[in-house]
Amino acid sequence: MTDPQQLPALQRRLAEFAAARRWQPFHTPKNLAIALSVEASELLEIFQWLTPEQAAAVMTDATTAPRVEDEVADVLAYLLQFCDVLGIDLLAALAAKIDRNELRFPRPDDTTG
Amino acid sequence: MTDPQQLPALQRRLAEFAAARRWQPFHTPKNLAIALSVEASELLEIFQWLTPEQAAAVMTDATTAPRVEDEVADVLAYLLQFCDVLGIDLLAALAAKIDRNELRFPRPDDTTG
Amino acid sequence: MTDPQQLPALQRRLAEFAAARRWQPFHTPKNLAIALSVEASELLEIFQWLTPEQAAAVMTDATTAPRVEDEVADVLAYLLQFCDVLGIDLLAALAAKIDRNELRFPRPDDTTG
Amino acid sequence: MTDPQQLPALQRRLAEFAAARRWQPFHTPKNLAIALSVEASELLEIFQWLTPEQAAAVMTDATTAPRVEDEVADVLAYLLQFCDVLGIDLLAALAAKIDRNELRFPRPDDTTG
Repeated sequence: MTDPQQLPALQRRLAEFAAARRWQPFHTPKNLAIALSVEASELLEIFQWLTPEQAAAVMTDATTAPRVEDEVADVLAYLLQFCDVLGIDLLAALAAKIDRNELRFPRPDDTTG
Repeated sequence: MTDPQQLPALQRRLAEFAAARRWQPFHTPKNLAIALSVEASELLEIFQWLTPEQAAAVMTDATTAPRVEDEVADVLAYLLQFCDVLGIDLLAALAAKIDRNELRFPRPDDTTG
Repeated sequence: MTDPQQLPALQRRLAEFAAARRWQPFHTPKNLAIALSVEASELLEIFQWLTPEQAAAVMTDATTAPRVEDEVADVLAYLLQFCDVLGIDLLAALAAKIDRNELRFPRPDDTTG
Repeated sequence: MTDPQQLPALQRRLAEFAAARRWQPFHTPKNLAIALSVEASELLEIFQWLTPEQAAAVMTDATTAPRVEDEVADVLAYLLQFCDVLGIDLLAALAAKIDRNELRFPRPDDTTG
């Protein structure tokens, strides 16, 4: 990953893609939250009947690997568009959340095995 | 966003956080896909009874704004951890998906406003 | 609805259907909870880009009406199988929940229109 | 389950409950589909970090058993309200779906072990 602007660049591509096709009226915050949830379920669906061993091997299977990549892309796409429409800085939100979690779940003392 | 490595840096922080607390056994691909879906629903839940106007204003409301940021962070956290555990390049997956969508949904001829 | 035993009868048909096809090993409580969530999302997906007016008319549209019926059936199917596998009395659980809700959300004084 | 009218009776209780509290404007088909999906995720959340053994034992654990019953009730509640608002006969929809599935997935010949 050498391009420092991939995340904002992808966010812009998504916004232009939707604008060029006049999709913005559909891209309300509530609809985007629904779409994100639906895509997360489509990703989960790939795993629903898999054993833990089959689940661990999804990226080595020629049928499931492209499906997983496709759904992961769809989840990120809607997450980025949701944040774009509401003016949320996604990476800052996660950095702040990890900071808060480090206080809520203090690192245990790690002197024993 | 001036730090070119924020996404990989966050991914590393999340991995170290889980390792320090011995959470990796729980972080199987299937469990992470479940957790991602659950967090996407928690984000959607904020909107479930809101009118379109209220939904558009969630980031200006002192009660809902932090909740939305918190859930958006949780969704990205599990998406990053899912990709990390399965060795998926998340940004490359989305870039490829947008490329495919540009073929599936060709840009309409846009000579009028 | 004249058959007093439709719900238990349907639950039995679903159990026999799965047994005849040797599907029970897949029907663990966790997998059934996943499947239920996935089907609920498939139902929601029908509505994701619809306006409130279009949403209200889904059962009058020849394309969406069968899809909605199909997904509603799938949601109930997995809910019944989930309860069957765990020995939960679904109707008793809902009756008890409504009782609890009547205490949590007391009926407002309703002397005016 | 001795009361032949439990499902329609529960549907009526839910409708009266909402009407008495003036909740009907919120209970649009789209919002009810969202709420159903959110509750299905809340049920799934109980299982997200559980091993298969822990998952099988949820109803014997004093902490998880009431949570599972509560969420199962919430899922059915929104499913019933969704069908009520759209005039869908839920049990008929499932009976028809099982009929279709018996054609799509024919019962295998069961003469061998």
